[in-house]
Amino acid sequence: MFGTLFTTQDVVSSAFAGALLATLSTAVLCFLGLTWINERWRMPVAMVGVAALASALHYLGSTSLWLEAQKASSGVRFSAWFTVHPLQVAAVYFYARTMDKVPVGIFWRISAAALLMVFSRYLGDAHFFNPALGVLLSIGFWLYILGEMYFGAMADAVRKGKRPVRLGYFWIRLIMTIGWAIYPILHFVDVVIGTGQANGVVALYTLFDLVNLITPSLIVLAVAGQERY
Amino acid sequence: MFGTLFTTQDVVSSAFAGALLATLSTAVLCFLGLTWINERWRMPVAMVGVAALASALHYLGSTSLWLEAQKASSGVRFSAWFTVHPLQVAAVYFYARTMDKVPVGIFWRISAAALLMVFSRYLGDAHFFNPALGVLLSIGFWLYILGEMYFGAMADAVRKGKRPVRLGYFWIRLIMTIGWAIYPILHFVDVVIGTGQANGVVALYTLFDLVNLITPSLIVLAVAGQERY
Amino acid sequence: MFGTLFTTQDVVSSAFAGALLATLSTAVLCFLGLTWINERWRMPVAMVGVAALASALHYLGSTSLWLEAQKASSGVRFSAWFTVHPLQVAAVYFYARTMDKVPVGIFWRISAAALLMVFSRYLGDAHFFNPALGVLLSIGFWLYILGEMYFGAMADAVRKGKRPVRLGYFWIRLIMTIGWAIYPILHFVDVVIGTGQANGVVALYTLFDLVNLITPSLIVLAVAGQERY
Amino acid sequence: MFGTLFTTQDVVSSAFAGALLATLSTAVLCFLGLTWINERWRMPVAMVGVAALASALHYLGSTSLWLEAQKASSGVRFSAWFTVHPLQVAAVYFYARTMDKVPVGIFWRISAAALLMVFSRYLGDAHFFNPALGVLLSIGFWLYILGEMYFGAMADAVRKGKRPVRLGYFWIRLIMTIGWAIYPILHFVDVVIGTGQANGVVALYTLFDLVNLITPSLIVLAVAGQERY
Amino acid sequence: MFGTLFTTQDVVSSAFAGALLATLSTAVLCFLGLTWINERWRMPVAMVGVAALASALHYLGSTSLWLEAQKASSGVRFSAWFTVHPLQVAAVYFYARTMDKVPVGIFWRISAAALLMVFSRYLGDAHFFNPALGVLLSIGFWLYILGEMYFGAMADAVRKGKRPVRLGYFWIRLIMTIGWAIYPILHFVDVVIGTGQANGVVALYTLFDLVNLITPSLIVLAVAGQERY
Repeated sequence: MFGTLFTTQDVVSSAFAGALLATLSTAVLCFLGLTWINERWRMPVAMVGVAALASALHYLGSTSLWLEAQKASSGVRFSAWFTVHPLQVAAVYFYARTMDKVPVGIFWRISAAALLMVFSRYLGDAHFFNPALGVLLSIGFWLYILGEMYFGAMADAVRKGKRPVRLGYFWIRLIMTIGWAIYPILHFVDVVIGTGQANGVVALYTLFDLVNLITPSLIVLAVAGQERY
Repeated sequence: MFGTLFTTQDVVSSAFAGALLATLSTAVLCFLGLTWINERWRMPVAMVGVAALASALHYLGSTSLWLEAQKASSGVRFSAWFTVHPLQVAAVYFYARTMDKVPVGIFWRISAAALLMVFSRYLGDAHFFNPALGVLLSIGFWLYILGEMYFGAMADAVRKGKRPVRLGYFWIRLIMTIGWAIYPILHFVDVVIGTGQANGVVALYTLFDLVNLITPSLIVLAVAGQERY
Repeated sequence: MFGTLFTTQDVVSSAFAGALLATLSTAVLCFLGLTWINERWRMPVAMVGVAALASALHYLGSTSLWLEAQKASSGVRFSAWFTVHPLQVAAVYFYARTMDKVPVGIFWRISAAALLMVFSRYLGDAHFFNPALGVLLSIGFWLYILGEMYFGAMADAVRKGKRPVRLGYFWIRLIMTIGWAIYPILHFVDVVIGTGQANGVVALYTLFDLVNLITPSLIVLAVAGQERY
Repeated sequence: MFGTLFTTQDVVSSAFAGALLATLSTAVLCFLGLTWINERWRMPVAMVGVAALASALHYLGSTSLWLEAQKASSGVRFSAWFTVHPLQVAAVYFYARTMDKVPVGIFWRISAAALLMVFSRYLGDAHFFNPALGVLLSIGFWLYILGEMYFGAMADAVRKGKRPVRLGYFWIRLIMTIGWAIYPILHFVDVVIGTGQANGVVALYTLFDLVNLITPSLIVLAVAGQERY
Repeated sequence: MFGTLFTTQDVVSSAFAGALLATLSTAVLCFLGLTWINERWRMPVAMVGVAALASALHYLGSTSLWLEAQKASSGVRFSAWFTVHPLQVAAVYFYARTMDKVPVGIFWRISAAALLMVFSRYLGDAHFFNPALGVLLSIGFWLYILGEMYFGAMADAVRKGKRPVRLGYFWIRLIMTIGWAIYPILHFVDVVIGTGQANGVVALYTLFDLVNLITPSLIVLAVAGQERY
């Protein structure tokens, strides 16, 4: 796992190694959770679990790279984001679906928007077009997803649920509103301003990844299990 | 996982790394899906999941090779295709089988055709006989599979299903018609014309692998779960 | 697993390698235990299992590091503690919850306290502030958790359980009182006094990790299974 | 997985890599199959799955060895055969057992014969005694197993089953009669004649391993699932 | 898995590699067995499975070490024994428990005795005190465990079971009486006489490990499944 020794003063290494174990533990906990939650909730829980697993595998790679060479790249991050973000957004759809019918078209639209959100940022990062344009486009897709979550049929469906379901939806949506703001912001700092993968940027990415990935996963798992616990 | 750092501008590395995580996530999601879908659907879902897993393991190897030496080989790809293509074709048979009895002979014929489709391309690629002949033979076997899917007993069986089942079959068949066309085409470019594993060829293979592997898997999973979601 | 040969006289290597296998076995046993215990108990058992797994993965890394270079770092340990300690504390909450309703606020408070307990020790270790302050703060959070366990709603809930449940709670709490005392003590020795990761410190950490991790996990598993065995 | 690049013209490398993915996929498919087959069939399916897994792990090792040094050894093969052959033979016993009581003595005798079949070949290969004697002894044990399968209580028990069960037994027995003939033959070529692990010998071993391992596994899985599909 | 080529004439390498695959296969078979055995039997089966897994992981390490450097150490063995022996002894307790109530005190006493049996041998091997004393002490603890198994409440409980349960107990106990005798004997040869880890010693250890680990595991699994098969 950890090819090199690092001290606690090396904040980035500690953050990477901690993120690796935390995301992997989240994934395993979600998978085990499938054995006690109500069958209706298995799909969103499986999805956040797989998103956490994909992120953990990406951290397995980037932790090794960082410990060996103290270098990080947005390339490695993007390889995970293409899988993680659409999965997380789709999980919200199925979260709402457990409460009431939600048109399947919304699923396709927000999943595609999540993919395009990552892809436009990717094209900017790779300088296929202006990085600033990538940031703007990705913000647009992100706002569309948020719009569906705040004013669309998913919000209506969730409103029919009991208090823990409504509360969980509220918090997940909040994290996707505030926490996800880090991605265009850091992307702007990193590529448009051009700091590159400076230590601060890497540490911030990792910190927010922890919040944005682990908290919603645990919220979904907790809500799914609330009928029992 | 990722032995070397790569930037987003290195499109092939990004594609490989992304494909590795995406196919692995697909496989895990299908395996977890076995816990919530109807028992009748477990066989096709397990098969597309195993196909995605075999592909993910192949990407684990070829991603390492690419990141280290920026080289790819059709040899590594073929080692996965021998497992992936027959599994995918067999999954379509069991997909149809969930709706109505389909003669078991069709299963043997289309599985064998899928194996021979890969094998004839392999023999051409390895110059056991003329690569162009390999391309032609593989197209023949592919057309036979498509024929069974369009006009055979599987299409009849699926027609008895509800709308989502019919729709899913339609889309999987479409992907196998259009998406799979990339294999003889790229094989022609790569071996007969002789560009070898140029960056563009590798990127296209990877891109289409993503579509051809992940989309049908998710469609099967979605249709299998539609009685609940 | 073990990249280098070590003899039994090399106590630290033996302790590391033994801890790796013991924690991993504990994790697997807890996961398998989910198949025979009562559904009500699955959550605490899953949590101690995941805590043991995270610890095992950390030992996988630190065993390799130790065998290669005979060096250990608190950095690697902290990366696991951030996951392990909150999980263990949360497991105690759900342990009590199986017996009676316990306000969900307690869950949030003790989980946060466990995270802060590790974090304040981390900040001290990394010299963000005085290590002695880190020790004191972490002791404060630890005492708060113990307070909740001895005099809070969890103790009340457990009192309604049968004898094995009450006995199990008594022992887990005792381990968290006596066993966990090693962390501030060794931290004091290691950072404030400044011995660093001397062999004795490493061996003691590992020994207490075994007690603090494996015993509570097995107690939870045993209590969860006691209705059958 | 694959440490070195290989082309399709390198038949042995392709065969090894293909065998690795194919046997692993077979193992996973059998394990997943346990979720949909009738409980009565779980034991034989689990056994062929574990046999495929052991073979896959052996290929994981020998593929790495081959790709690095283009060398193979019968030593590595034997390490797997000791596990694989007795498991396959025992699976046939439990296959028959699903239909009717079969004396448990037969289980012990054919499992022991399978172990001795591999062991006598091993002793010959390692020149503990004359390799030709090893071949002869192993043929004797093999014939004993075949005798039990053709004329013993297992054949009687299977005769009480429905057509797919009888057909599956017929094919598995045929593979063990014709396919397994390759082992004494190639052993004779390899050790007694003394060609060693020539490329042709390695390729033939691998090819027959694929037939001898994967086909019976899939037959058992198919028969086990035939009550549903 | 296998980093180096070895021939069949290299008996120790073959034994190691074979033991790795055999113990791992045993572990997987036990885990899969949990899906078909009676719920009452899951605990002992899980325990022997985890013991086999811990042993397999230890062989994964020591096989690599042996193949690279032709060296073995008792240090690596001990790291597994600390987990394996107590688990095996505890499994016997739960084996008896399936038949009738057995005082839980016996569980604690024989588990502790198994741990002390390994620990006293370890202290001797590491020359904390005279190795001969370690041998004697470990024999004492071993005899205590045997005493409980022959004349204690476990034997009484098992006597109430049907013939296969009684027979299985008889064989497991016999293996723990005769097979386990190898540990003090080889320890005497290895440390007290001082041959060290000579090839013969390593081969004998491995051979007996196979018998002592795999046979009881399979017996427990077979007895657990006998109500069905």
